Amino acid sequence: MNYAKTAGELLAKVRKVHPLLHHITNYVVMNDCANMALHIGGSPVMAHAHNEMEEMTGIASALVINIGTLDNEWIEGMKVAAKKASTRGIPIILDPVGAGATKLRTQTALNFLNNYPVGVLKGNLGEISVLAGLGGEVRGVDSASGGAEAKICAVEAADKFNTVVAVTGKEDYISDGKTTLCVSNGHKWLSAITGSGCCAGTVVSAFCAVGDNLVTASACGLAVYGIASEIAAQNANGPASFRTAFFDTVYNLTPEIVEKHARIENA
Amino acid sequence: MNYAKTAGELLAKVRKVHPLLHHITNYVVMNDCANMALHIGGSPVMAHAHNEMEEMTGIASALVINIGTLDNEWIEGMKVAAKKASTRGIPIILDPVGAGATKLRTQTALNFLNNYPVGVLKGNLGEISVLAGLGGEVRGVDSASGGAEAKICAVEAADKFNTVVAVTGKEDYISDGKTTLCVSNGHKWLSAITGSGCCAGTVVSAFCAVGDNLVTASACGLAVYGIASEIAAQNANGPASFRTAFFDTVYNLTPEIVEKHARIENA
Amino acid sequence: MNYAKTAGELLAKVRKVHPLLHHITNYVVMNDCANMALHIGGSPVMAHAHNEMEEMTGIASALVINIGTLDNEWIEGMKVAAKKASTRGIPIILDPVGAGATKLRTQTALNFLNNYPVGVLKGNLGEISVLAGLGGEVRGVDSASGGAEAKICAVEAADKFNTVVAVTGKEDYISDGKTTLCVSNGHKWLSAITGSGCCAGTVVSAFCAVGDNLVTASACGLAVYGIASEIAAQNANGPASFRTAFFDTVYNLTPEIVEKHARIENA
Repeated sequence: MNYAKTAGELLAKVRKVHPLLHHITNYVVMNDCANMALHIGGSPVMAHAHNEMEEMTGIASALVINIGTLDNEWIEGMKVAAKKASTRGIPIILDPVGAGATKLRTQTALNFLNNYPVGVLKGNLGEISVLAGLGGEVRGVDSASGGAEAKICAVEAADKFNTVVAVTGKEDYISDGKTTLCVSNGHKWLSAITGSGCCAGTVVSAFCAVGDNLVTASACGLAVYGIASEIAAQNANGPASFRTAFFDTVYNLTPEIVEKHARIENA
Repeated sequence: MNYAKTAGELLAKVRKVHPLLHHITNYVVMNDCANMALHIGGSPVMAHAHNEMEEMTGIASALVINIGTLDNEWIEGMKVAAKKASTRGIPIILDPVGAGATKLRTQTALNFLNNYPVGVLKGNLGEISVLAGLGGEVRGVDSASGGAEAKICAVEAADKFNTVVAVTGKEDYISDGKTTLCVSNGHKWLSAITGSGCCAGTVVSAFCAVGDNLVTASACGLAVYGIASEIAAQNANGPASFRTAFFDTVYNLTPEIVEKHARIENA
Repeated sequence: MNYAKTAGELLAKVRKVHPLLHHITNYVVMNDCANMALHIGGSPVMAHAHNEMEEMTGIASALVINIGTLDNEWIEGMKVAAKKASTRGIPIILDPVGAGATKLRTQTALNFLNNYPVGVLKGNLGEISVLAGLGGEVRGVDSASGGAEAKICAVEAADKFNTVVAVTGKEDYISDGKTTLCVSNGHKWLSAITGSGCCAGTVVSAFCAVGDNLVTASACGLAVYGIASEIAAQNANGPASFRTAFFDTVYNLTPEIVEKHARIENA
């Protein structure tokens, strides 16, 4: 399969369909994720109140659950939304920010994985390792080390939770337990800005909203995200000017650029 | 009346008076609205706790109520603030983000319109159409189509709610049911960044805080906002660099630039 | 003591240690503070839920409590975190945003000062004056005038609360009641962007996390922050492009640049 071509085609589809991406995400990244959703071609909505979840998730094409600034009130809203997403069959993207750092985060992430049909679990090596019981250490939300290698971690977590798992890092590994893809697009400055992982989740949700296969769609979304970072880094003076260039580049990406630069391989 | 001249004069007044603009707004745009308030010449404060609403609204020159990320706790705070604003006679700017998408949003907006002296209702065509009972469809918070033409919608909603209504779009229509103005400043890239409508509400609140007539003040605020977007777009590479240039331009605008470029007409 | 040299050394130490900076801060500035934490060399975490405070503060190297968008739920979380920080002996940085504007803010700030071992109280002249009972007026969160001169205010507040006090402004005064330092780095455009005071608190927390003396560490942090603003202003067209350049500059600062430009003196 020519994954690079598929990545370009899915980008074109996102821009044609403008999928509504319902985010229940953390306070830190809401603005960035909303802009990322718009620039990639989707339509963002941030909403968390229990009493509008049924309706809001009811018109969405994908649901992003991100536990970066969690509390009990928000967890209840997330549950209502996840149940509705489950009924409608739209993909749920779970970003377990800081899982492993506190029991609240670990248990909340596990609760969603065990009781709702999460479509894609996307996190860094430390977070996924801890959730999958493979060891690892999580210190805050930006720093983590894994207990297993990224590829093994993705495959074992996918098996364990019966979902697609995307372990992001220098290389991203995406697996459903059978098929495993590796994406090697990206730039180190992504790790110098906050919320770059969360915004990757937004792009993954857009691609999963329009793609048939969640492994392929997730990998394509991460490749597109990485390509934009590579282009943006060429003219940046630091992480803040990189960030501006990065968001501009996401907006200006074409399927042709994506097809030319995507590095997605069977792992 | 020379509206362009008035727009310049009101900008000068905002910068002289530095009106305190109390926002109870959504999480996504708080940072942008605070910066917009500063750059236009006002002073922002974001506060939502019930037990400081009386005091905070008590020292403000305008109150912005934006329902973009609503929940019941915040609604209660908004009510206390609206009541205080009503007592003091300062303008309340209501931005019904996503009204029509969920009952919670529609009913909350209607509740404020029916029970508090909203000074300006500012929204897109879909939101205002739904609230005024003119049909229309709202999908999320960025995408909407109206059931009526913008001018008719503004006039009818103003009549229905006995308030000033600003329907924003390619052209903005501002009406109190008798006088209706059309503002044709603006740039398409405003719709490529999240929160551009919310920040427009901030500028409208600053102009309403210092102006005598809410129709004129709202139109002038929207014209100034649009002028900044036109200038900023000239050197931008995409929506993120546009955003930076846009905020810079708002800060650097002078009454002279505004008077020269404002396009405000009787509709 | 060569404070400029110490400032450079502490910056190098922050970048070596990557202290985890636990923020319970306001919605407006969370994204900026997280990026500031990363760019200066620390690792940010934003968390507020009562039921993860023990664990999150338990792995942090400093705790930032910022009352900019307060409510009762968050106050409870702040208390749990402050108690844990106290037990562990990590520095608590208190930013009393808007103290004096409402009783909720004034009393919350006083409660922390009187009942928890606050390491550094950092605020503008109006906020600190009000808290120390020296008069002053606070209007919203960006505008305040003090009842005492900045140096006197810092010294008296330090005496009163038995803590280090940093009064920020054109010159910053940092005192523990005995030693008082004056930092004269900075640029006026810092006051044209929202959250510049809050982000200064982030940098102060990073320096206090690695420094032995909180007066020196706070002064060094504020000097480094000010140096970055001076460099960034050289090529900015307005506050938004300044902001981008400022964050880039913080990231690109070296101990050598800091040692050369820091202006820290005994006051």
